[in-house]
Amino acid sequence: MQQLEYKGTVIKECFFERKNINKFEAIFTQGNGYLGIRNALEEHYVGEIRDTFITGTFNKASDEEVTELPNIADVSAVKIVVDGEEFSLTEGKISSYERSLDLTTGESTRIIEWESPKGIKLNLVFRRFVSLDNEHIFVQKVELLCDKDANIIIESGIDGSVTNSGAMHFEDIQRRVYDGKYMEYIAKTTQSHVKVIQGAVCSLNKEASVIPVMGRRTLANRYSLKVNANEKLEFEKKSIFFSERDKEFTHLEEENRLEEIKKESAKLIRELEELSYDELFKRSKSKWKEYFDKSKIDIGTDDNYIKTSINFALYHLRIMVKADDNRVGIGAKALSGEGYKGHSFWDTELFILPYFTYTHPEIARTLLEYRYHNLYGARIKAKENGYEGAMYPWECAWVDDGEVTPLYMGADIVTGEITKVWTGLIEHHITADIVYAIDNYYRVTNDNDYMERYGYEIIFEAALFWASRLEYIADKDRYEIRNVIGPDEYKEHVDNNAYTNYMAAYTMRLALEKYEYLKTENEKLFDILNSKLDLKYIKGCIEKKLPKLYLPLPNEEGIIPQSDTFLGLKKLDISKYKNSDEVLGIYNDYNTKQLNEYMVSKQSDTVMLLYLFRDLFDTETRKKNFIFYEDKTLHDSSLSKSTHAILANEFDFEEMSYKLFKGAISVDMGTNMKSSDEGIHSASIGGIWAVYVFGFGGVMIDKKGLSISPCLPKGWDFLEFPLVYKGTSLRVRVEKNNDVSIQKIDGNSVEIYVKGEKLLIK
Amino acid sequence: MQQLEYKGTVIKECFFERKNINKFEAIFTQGNGYLGIRNALEEHYVGEIRDTFITGTFNKASDEEVTELPNIADVSAVKIVVDGEEFSLTEGKISSYERSLDLTTGESTRIIEWESPKGIKLNLVFRRFVSLDNEHIFVQKVELLCDKDANIIIESGIDGSVTNSGAMHFEDIQRRVYDGKYMEYIAKTTQSHVKVIQGAVCSLNKEASVIPVMGRRTLANRYSLKVNANEKLEFEKKSIFFSERDKEFTHLEEENRLEEIKKESAKLIRELEELSYDELFKRSKSKWKEYFDKSKIDIGTDDNYIKTSINFALYHLRIMVKADDNRVGIGAKALSGEGYKGHSFWDTELFILPYFTYTHPEIARTLLEYRYHNLYGARIKAKENGYEGAMYPWECAWVDDGEVTPLYMGADIVTGEITKVWTGLIEHHITADIVYAIDNYYRVTNDNDYMERYGYEIIFEAALFWASRLEYIADKDRYEIRNVIGPDEYKEHVDNNAYTNYMAAYTMRLALEKYEYLKTENEKLFDILNSKLDLKYIKGCIEKKLPKLYLPLPNEEGIIPQSDTFLGLKKLDISKYKNSDEVLGIYNDYNTKQLNEYMVSKQSDTVMLLYLFRDLFDTETRKKNFIFYEDKTLHDSSLSKSTHAILANEFDFEEMSYKLFKGAISVDMGTNMKSSDEGIHSASIGGIWAVYVFGFGGVMIDKKGLSISPCLPKGWDFLEFPLVYKGTSLRVRVEKNNDVSIQKIDGNSVEIYVKGEKLLIK
Repeated sequence: MQQLEYKGTVIKECFFERKNINKFEAIFTQGNGYLGIRNALEEHYVGEIRDTFITGTFNKASDEEVTELPNIADVSAVKIVVDGEEFSLTEGKISSYERSLDLTTGESTRIIEWESPKGIKLNLVFRRFVSLDNEHIFVQKVELLCDKDANIIIESGIDGSVTNSGAMHFEDIQRRVYDGKYMEYIAKTTQSHVKVIQGAVCSLNKEASVIPVMGRRTLANRYSLKVNANEKLEFEKKSIFFSERDKEFTHLEEENRLEEIKKESAKLIRELEELSYDELFKRSKSKWKEYFDKSKIDIGTDDNYIKTSINFALYHLRIMVKADDNRVGIGAKALSGEGYKGHSFWDTELFILPYFTYTHPEIARTLLEYRYHNLYGARIKAKENGYEGAMYPWECAWVDDGEVTPLYMGADIVTGEITKVWTGLIEHHITADIVYAIDNYYRVTNDNDYMERYGYEIIFEAALFWASRLEYIADKDRYEIRNVIGPDEYKEHVDNNAYTNYMAAYTMRLALEKYEYLKTENEKLFDILNSKLDLKYIKGCIEKKLPKLYLPLPNEEGIIPQSDTFLGLKKLDISKYKNSDEVLGIYNDYNTKQLNEYMVSKQSDTVMLLYLFRDLFDTETRKKNFIFYEDKTLHDSSLSKSTHAILANEFDFEEMSYKLFKGAISVDMGTNMKSSDEGIHSASIGGIWAVYVFGFGGVMIDKKGLSISPCLPKGWDFLEFPLVYKGTSLRVRVEKNNDVSIQKIDGNSVEIYVKGEKLLIK
Repeated sequence: MQQLEYKGTVIKECFFERKNINKFEAIFTQGNGYLGIRNALEEHYVGEIRDTFITGTFNKASDEEVTELPNIADVSAVKIVVDGEEFSLTEGKISSYERSLDLTTGESTRIIEWESPKGIKLNLVFRRFVSLDNEHIFVQKVELLCDKDANIIIESGIDGSVTNSGAMHFEDIQRRVYDGKYMEYIAKTTQSHVKVIQGAVCSLNKEASVIPVMGRRTLANRYSLKVNANEKLEFEKKSIFFSERDKEFTHLEEENRLEEIKKESAKLIRELEELSYDELFKRSKSKWKEYFDKSKIDIGTDDNYIKTSINFALYHLRIMVKADDNRVGIGAKALSGEGYKGHSFWDTELFILPYFTYTHPEIARTLLEYRYHNLYGARIKAKENGYEGAMYPWECAWVDDGEVTPLYMGADIVTGEITKVWTGLIEHHITADIVYAIDNYYRVTNDNDYMERYGYEIIFEAALFWASRLEYIADKDRYEIRNVIGPDEYKEHVDNNAYTNYMAAYTMRLALEKYEYLKTENEKLFDILNSKLDLKYIKGCIEKKLPKLYLPLPNEEGIIPQSDTFLGLKKLDISKYKNSDEVLGIYNDYNTKQLNEYMVSKQSDTVMLLYLFRDLFDTETRKKNFIFYEDKTLHDSSLSKSTHAILANEFDFEEMSYKLFKGAISVDMGTNMKSSDEGIHSASIGGIWAVYVFGFGGVMIDKKGLSISPCLPKGWDFLEFPLVYKGTSLRVRVEKNNDVSIQKIDGNSVEIYVKGEKLLIK
């Protein structure tokens, strides 16, 4: 029996299994981009990972570790004791159990019939949501009904005895209970000194005696009462969350900030006390409706797995982004787990951003403003590495933290050798990826304001980095880019990774274009930027080197070498790993060093190049290379399958495409019960959306503009999705036969190429 | 059905109940005084407190908290997976369960028949012990037998993701696996910078594949294998523990110490691998036999609860003390829990030390040497408080930490007020309690060497403190001691606490005696001490004030006032709390402030005085005061009942005495399943021994020497106990009719008063 059920807008956990709790904690995570709360159950279980994050509160647990998003005090736990016996699903008997997450309203509901060891039968309903209406709020409700009179204890509060897998982030704990019910918990991060302010208030629909209970880092209220048989007890808890880094308090002087937030939170918790769960949920739900009205994708299929997948993606895409705050990025695990420490990678720009660019351009802009503010750290990184311009951090945390990739992994436990982490040092393509995202954003939105304030500066600085990064190889009289890691992280220290070289060339070429454009069309801005960045110098650097930059071309067999050495590596039959559900299964047989010697890729690398630049090579070459590399790609990164699905679809490998597509969906939503333990895969989730819109929907942007050339999977009756193009909101409908109709929802007329033909959408 | 069974030398947990796991973790704690490991089960449960302590490794988790004994990485957990299902008693079916701790060998054994949810029947036996032969060793064994062929995974290692109730004490984690099996884990305390070095090695009686598994602060080996039906699998794990504060490494330079310890531990773990559980246990068991041969008490009763109690006490008394290390004291919870943070109180000198003084004088000496080294902090404390001499810390941690009582409790969560902790500031009697213990130790052992090196200095310095502490009250022309807390902590800020005043007077008087003695009998030492401490000055101070020190006398009703105000306080019927099992139950109805206004005592206070000085008042007065105060004493401290039991016995209140005695036994060993959660009560356990030997055995020491005037409980056929008096080992046997026979085991002849008659024991 399968534990997961897919119902389109709802995803359901059909029974309880302790060993799989982490899966559901992660994929049922609730949040709003500011706050993320894993859906750990109200009662504790061995093995649970009970995480709560506030975006941007980064802290270093110790000198030898890098900064990370700290797990703040938990409020989600609720202890229920019935006639002296604590409610727990591993004790007593479960007569029925289900938990579902409504992906379109953000509410999770758990319905249980449970018999206590003593034989009292309970009906329990647990509901909870993180508000999309007020990002500081998390609300829970418990309904409880016993078949006999019983003594009930309900205890819940704020529990600061939490860690990130054993690493502790907080000190200076202050705890208060006001008026016997308003709980307040304040703690400060140990290194970054960010104060986090939490509050909670509980209520019951029946008179109960209440006492405060405290432990070393905990604070709770304990309610004791008698319930009659079949009398429904309703417990509600409202919790609030603030931090000194919250956007709305940044205008305050640091010394007044805490007091101001305390006032604000005291006010809020008292207001919330007066409002019911239902009322607060209604408010949040209406925000979810607004969001889905703008975002939803309709698919003409009966396959509920497929239908659920897009709602699953849209849900998580919404809760991973702090839509209005340009000081925070999106973590590789979003706010759903401790994996990757809350750091942002290129995942954001190439896999997640497209969704926002095409559907919520104002959010895309916020994310790209974050990258503008990252320039501070990127310039430092360039300097430290002996380059010019801006060299983006491979991993990015707080807006101006700079590079936060660990320099070393702990000593190899077997050899004792300190292992350098190379990605932060030599995975350089991110500096081009960000430029690519900006260029695309601009093409889709025509947001000149962004470009003028931020975009051009990033492009020039990135281009200058690349120009300074090129190495002149005298005997070949050309420039090369040596010693990098491309997207395929199974190959470290390679020379002339095709993806990296082409992306670098693209970045520099774009800078030259923008140079000419500004010089002729916007002299005022040109002058400003020139005086700030010395554009002429940048142009000179690029023009000197770019023409001689080595760009790997297809060899005699038509194959573009992924790097100088790739095509000479040993061959390996990887079907065993490709056909297995196990991610990184190849590590059972080969270690990192050995993998460097085989012609296998962790993830799309050259294929990524084919995907980003559809006109770089002729169709024949592109197809040939796709086949060649797909065969050698393990998809051991969650970033990989969606890209391959889109290209497979383009090349009419329908079955392969659909299989890859389903594989991309399955990363988090599928039945592998361990894959999401550390958190959901935010880039993979962006990739799901991309397969729908860029793959089956055939949406693409290039210099000409937006084009739509759909190719629906067999058996789909239609596909309908929104697009915002140059400020105009559209709804695109693709029929079974790939006919396209476009409805304008809002905004001016726009020109779109539909299956090669230019159309004016009025 | 009762969960605890008492079998004389064995204490047994008869069935598993998750909510009571903390009780058994604590009372089944294993150790050797260096190392303490709570008996948390091999598999994890919600609510467990899984603590491992190495004595003396004190650290402050943060600036706002006081130093405490940090919970070091756990090795006790062993994960067992049978055909994909993890062994846990809250899942599957338990057909039979028992766990027992052999109090005379230190081994715990758990025998289980369990059926996995899938229906595989398992017989499991878990054994473990902390070695008394080599204090660095903890050994575990698991025997497993399935009724079907099954795939087994066993995973165990070193888990540093532990905290003290959420407070993290370690950084700089280093992890290694040597030769694929020798695990090493090194971590440093965050503030005191003590490195703790742990190692582990596992073995199986069957071929298995093994891989290392690591998490952020964890390291383990995972064994996978197939077992056949009814084939017994045996898993053994040996773990070792070292710290940079270990006595045997202190002679090394700090910079070489870690390397030396690593070498030592690498050698040890390899040696242990070659030795079986049984062999290692045999070695430890023989040390336990030596210990019990010296310590055992035989009781002529069929009551197994009683019989178990003395073995329970002797067991815990042994594992709480680092017998050969004068740099560490005994914590109020010993090494069995986080309660009281590993700090030492007067508990040691007045409740625990007598056992060692009378049975293992060399250990008593070590403990009193610790107090000598505490002088460093005691002198600072005196100075900081405006006094002279040595003012002992109310709470003591590392030998020269000084006062470690927290100055403040966190803000009162209800009022927000910062609550001062007064004990460290005004509970002064400890400085006399230590002197009393030294004086008694000397009388029992005649250890002149101790006195000359350490004892006299402490006595003089303590006496000088008291002389400086006295306050001259002009209108009464007398000295008083105002604003103290006596032993009864329900009365803060009292004046002239009888116990404190008499103890102070005793201390000063003793100093004068010792002054005269040294001046006449040991001039050389007198001169040395005089030049170091200015004995003449001390004498002058004492002689000036002592004659005018107010010592409360019985009032007209014959009652010695506990303090100036006590007898005027409101009366309260406390029978409700006295007859209840709940400790501190009075707090349900009264708060601390209110308790100050009632004539109720937390614990023996004036009665303690009557106990320590049997000849201070006539029998009539003593008895009257005992009755008066016993009636008002809640025994809400675990230090209280044993003292009252002894006096009740002396006054022939046989029934009352036996009830109090059983109450004292029950503190940890009884059926209150919550009382020991934070750790066992080491003073209470010392008190159990005291009731046997000082109470029923009637042993007492005074200026005359040792006297024995027994009074056995009705129904006991005999009582036999060891004594070491002035270096002579004796075995005392008391018959039903209180006849006494004394056998000399070893040493010279000694004179003893038996029932008032002087006897020479040859």
